[in-house]
Amino acid sequence: MRYELYYWPGIPGRGEFVRLALEDAGADYVDIGKLPEKNGGGAGAVSEFLHGGEMGQPHFAPPVLKAGDIVVSHVANILQFLGPRLGLVRDDEASRHWANGLQLTLTDFVAEIHDAHHPIGSSLYYEDQREEAQRRAETFVQERLPKFLYYFERVLAANAGNEAYLVGEAHSYVDLSLFQVVTGLRYAFPRAMGRLEPEVPEVTALVDRVSQRPRVAAYLTSDRRLDFNESGIFRHYPELDT
Amino acid sequence: MRYELYYWPGIPGRGEFVRLALEDAGADYVDIGKLPEKNGGGAGAVSEFLHGGEMGQPHFAPPVLKAGDIVVSHVANILQFLGPRLGLVRDDEASRHWANGLQLTLTDFVAEIHDAHHPIGSSLYYEDQREEAQRRAETFVQERLPKFLYYFERVLAANAGNEAYLVGEAHSYVDLSLFQVVTGLRYAFPRAMGRLEPEVPEVTALVDRVSQRPRVAAYLTSDRRLDFNESGIFRHYPELDT
Repeated sequence: MRYELYYWPGIPGRGEFVRLALEDAGADYVDIGKLPEKNGGGAGAVSEFLHGGEMGQPHFAPPVLKAGDIVVSHVANILQFLGPRLGLVRDDEASRHWANGLQLTLTDFVAEIHDAHHPIGSSLYYEDQREEAQRRAETFVQERLPKFLYYFERVLAANAGNEAYLVGEAHSYVDLSLFQVVTGLRYAFPRAMGRLEPEVPEVTALVDRVSQRPRVAAYLTSDRRLDFNESGIFRHYPELDT
Repeated sequence: MRYELYYWPGIPGRGEFVRLALEDAGADYVDIGKLPEKNGGGAGAVSEFLHGGEMGQPHFAPPVLKAGDIVVSHVANILQFLGPRLGLVRDDEASRHWANGLQLTLTDFVAEIHDAHHPIGSSLYYEDQREEAQRRAETFVQERLPKFLYYFERVLAANAGNEAYLVGEAHSYVDLSLFQVVTGLRYAFPRAMGRLEPEVPEVTALVDRVSQRPRVAAYLTSDRRLDFNESGIFRHYPELDT
């Protein structure tokens, strides 16, 4: 099966959570947004695919994954679809729903990380909501960031003896997503994370373990891995990192 | 199977999406938050359940559903679990992922509706972020509200001939959730919705159809249905309804 990933080129964004799962599993996939336009790629091809085409199923936003006849949108939905196929989640009902619940908490976390620099609207530039962003980022760094990190620390601690796995006794797609979120937070909020990470040693241990997985390590140093930048979810604005 | 729903008492909130599915299906359930404390209910019982207890699986936020040995958190996850059991989604893989993708778009929509009155932080009162809320609500009403409504109108139009169903040829839990969102929006933004609804006739037709389902109609007039209020997601602040 060759998977097709539809996501905007140029930013890691929400597409990166899907890429990490595909790369970690060594899956065969095409990243349509990154293909040259003359080969049917680019932002235009992504945008067109969102309209739903012959299947009559428009999608609100990317990422969208096409797997043969099945088309799946939203990160958590895509990872839930891929998980059992790529050996990235235990395939019993309780584990699948537990993993999906954790992934949806990460979804909420990512939305709040984004809104720390865009509290008024995603259609406006950061510069046009800088004052509001300072206020929101202060609340985010003081309250929400520790609340989410402590939560994942508690989940890992409650799963003690299982070497920093979020779901049962094995590596899963949720571990890959938490790795991506923490890596992004280190980029966006280095001061706050420097202060908080010593309080969440299980989270840090998970991130270390994931980064050492051979296919992940190879991917991170490849040119397929996009750098974080100030057009994405995780943006480094020093004035917000209090 | 007697389902147990854990959600804060006093507001319809995100719990209402789960309640509507259970009520529409005539399922046997207990709404723990609404039980008297002396019967093991109330906010304290909900809060305690979130800690994860003997299962060692803490949850970040309610709603959480307990179904025998299986515990599921997050609205979309719960509805995905309940859907096939309650006959509220077609039980093939493509339909389940399509329904879940639509539900996750509604999840994002609900978060934006909430943040229109709480752009700075959920820990602060509305009165302490009123200025920012005015700016955010303006963007929301002008850009995001129509964008989401037009999207669901397109989905319904693309599924033409199927009598205002979002998923295939049958009523599903996603229809119930869209009903709840539109009903809440009519409460919170009556002026904006009065302007926009004529542009989304398929959405309005779906809401009408859902409201006439016998068990839904009975539920809506029962004392189990909580009124929208200014402690919930859908709040009517006339100054934000531009």
